[in-house]
Amino acid sequence: MTTEDHPQLLRAFVPAHITAFFVPVFEEEPLRTGSLGAGVNLDRGTTVFMSIEENGAEWMGERLHVAFNGEPVSRDDAVISYSVAEKLMPDEFDGEIEIWQYFDFPNGCGFGNSAGGALGTALTFGLAFGRTLLDVARVAHVAEVENGGGLGDVVAQLAGGIEIRIRAGGPGIGVVDNVLSPDLKVVSVHLGPIRTRDLLDEEVVDVIKKEGVEALNRLTRDPRVPVMMELSRKFAERTGLMDDELVSLAREMDRVVPFRSSMIMLGRGIFSFVREGDLPAVEGLLNDLDVPHTISNVYRGKPLVSPWRTLREGSPT
Amino acid sequence: MTTEDHPQLLRAFVPAHITAFFVPVFEEEPLRTGSLGAGVNLDRGTTVFMSIEENGAEWMGERLHVAFNGEPVSRDDAVISYSVAEKLMPDEFDGEIEIWQYFDFPNGCGFGNSAGGALGTALTFGLAFGRTLLDVARVAHVAEVENGGGLGDVVAQLAGGIEIRIRAGGPGIGVVDNVLSPDLKVVSVHLGPIRTRDLLDEEVVDVIKKEGVEALNRLTRDPRVPVMMELSRKFAERTGLMDDELVSLAREMDRVVPFRSSMIMLGRGIFSFVREGDLPAVEGLLNDLDVPHTISNVYRGKPLVSPWRTLREGSPT
Repeated sequence: MTTEDHPQLLRAFVPAHITAFFVPVFEEEPLRTGSLGAGVNLDRGTTVFMSIEENGAEWMGERLHVAFNGEPVSRDDAVISYSVAEKLMPDEFDGEIEIWQYFDFPNGCGFGNSAGGALGTALTFGLAFGRTLLDVARVAHVAEVENGGGLGDVVAQLAGGIEIRIRAGGPGIGVVDNVLSPDLKVVSVHLGPIRTRDLLDEEVVDVIKKEGVEALNRLTRDPRVPVMMELSRKFAERTGLMDDELVSLAREMDRVVPFRSSMIMLGRGIFSFVREGDLPAVEGLLNDLDVPHTISNVYRGKPLVSPWRTLREGSPT
Repeated sequence: MTTEDHPQLLRAFVPAHITAFFVPVFEEEPLRTGSLGAGVNLDRGTTVFMSIEENGAEWMGERLHVAFNGEPVSRDDAVISYSVAEKLMPDEFDGEIEIWQYFDFPNGCGFGNSAGGALGTALTFGLAFGRTLLDVARVAHVAEVENGGGLGDVVAQLAGGIEIRIRAGGPGIGVVDNVLSPDLKVVSVHLGPIRTRDLLDEEVVDVIKKEGVEALNRLTRDPRVPVMMELSRKFAERTGLMDDELVSLAREMDRVVPFRSSMIMLGRGIFSFVREGDLPAVEGLLNDLDVPHTISNVYRGKPLVSPWRTLREGSPT
């Protein structure tokens, strides 16, 4: 099945994605379900390695193995990744496949790790078995929707950059635009995961929809980064998603960054856009506050997938 | 109007785009007009520099100047670029704008220079005056359609990579998928421009539509590079677009490249995908044949636009 063009070792990269504000859109068809909103892709994120053992492996009834950050995970702890892999494994394939996912950001903190793992896994299958980007990305999106992952991360990650989801839906249906901006970095502070299910009761969801639509309308009228951050902060505060600790952290940050800081949707954390020259003041503040933080670049490309070979001794470099 | 975030000097890059086969789709609305088909984006293409003189310039009745490869061009010789720039120049702007377009490939040879110039110009206006990627790309697409440029180049260039246009239309309407492939290079041989209007009489267009739809259906069923090149070659020969000289050149190339060679749509030239290891044989052949040729990488990103500053003596590097 695999040849020189369908290699045995593959690597994919999917950017981390932070949502600034959103409107969930549920439809009967998972491919039409998605979100409206805005966010940013980062040059750190999820890296997925796939290794294919064509045949000859002891076949123990398991053709598929998934690991997160080097630790094997069971089907129950990686429902989305197993779902993607099983849908994309050709029926006639009787070898063994290992999927190793590595995350630059902590899980559950609003960086789109789940979608990153799903899309990265999908991309390795796509390259290995001759399917297109949108074809496999649709599988990742549907697995996200059906299993309670993100609604808009996959399409946002496909678009890259600072993005505005102007039509909801999965790959090929949703439409994602980009805010054009000078080079900016993104500071993210991550205090921990958030319990999404506890937060999103019916009343909150109604406010989210109203505030999210309002923010989207205003951003499409004036699509610039400072406007996006103003709108995101207002969204976070008005929906009550942003707790007092995050508000006070954001106020501290506002003193050293050029645009408003806001909450990472959905994690206990905040993010801000900064210029190179702002970094010393930002790092000074965050070190004083002693909070875990990361500085990334905006990732303006598309997700990547390629064959991967380790360099051995004596290989040309 | 412009600020530190809306700089006075900007640079954009749009990849060259070669079409492998196509189906023209004409609708009343230019935004719904486009093409189906497949092609590849290259890491050479069109670079656009914009310089904005806010005010104080002697205002000679001309706010806009366009140059191709360093030579100023008149409105009549740059209809598409002037059209894009005039639509995107804010009414209240009373300064002067220069657009310098540089092309890595010759004009009229099927590399999407016209769309590259249109989209690159649109991107610089988008960053300078706070409009989104799709918003300005739509203006570039419409200018292409209304003035007889390409039908599918702008959306293909937005997608990057090895692309399949699966739904026709402009940015936000057309849907473009990607073939996933290992790293490949593209050899292009350019013998000269082609007179598109002479070629595309009604009878030929009917054959193009029939053969193009057939090729698209087959490629979406087995979306791999060797299949795409087989289909492209068949399309080129069956439509009669490929003349005897190009067929014989493609046959020579076929001896040294891994997949079929085909014709660049639409220029008097051919292109092939090659691996790193094929390069010595390919270059040997093309030097023997003494034909103008270029070797590029597949460009898998999105078009770029950013502020641009020259490094001055004493600047940090």
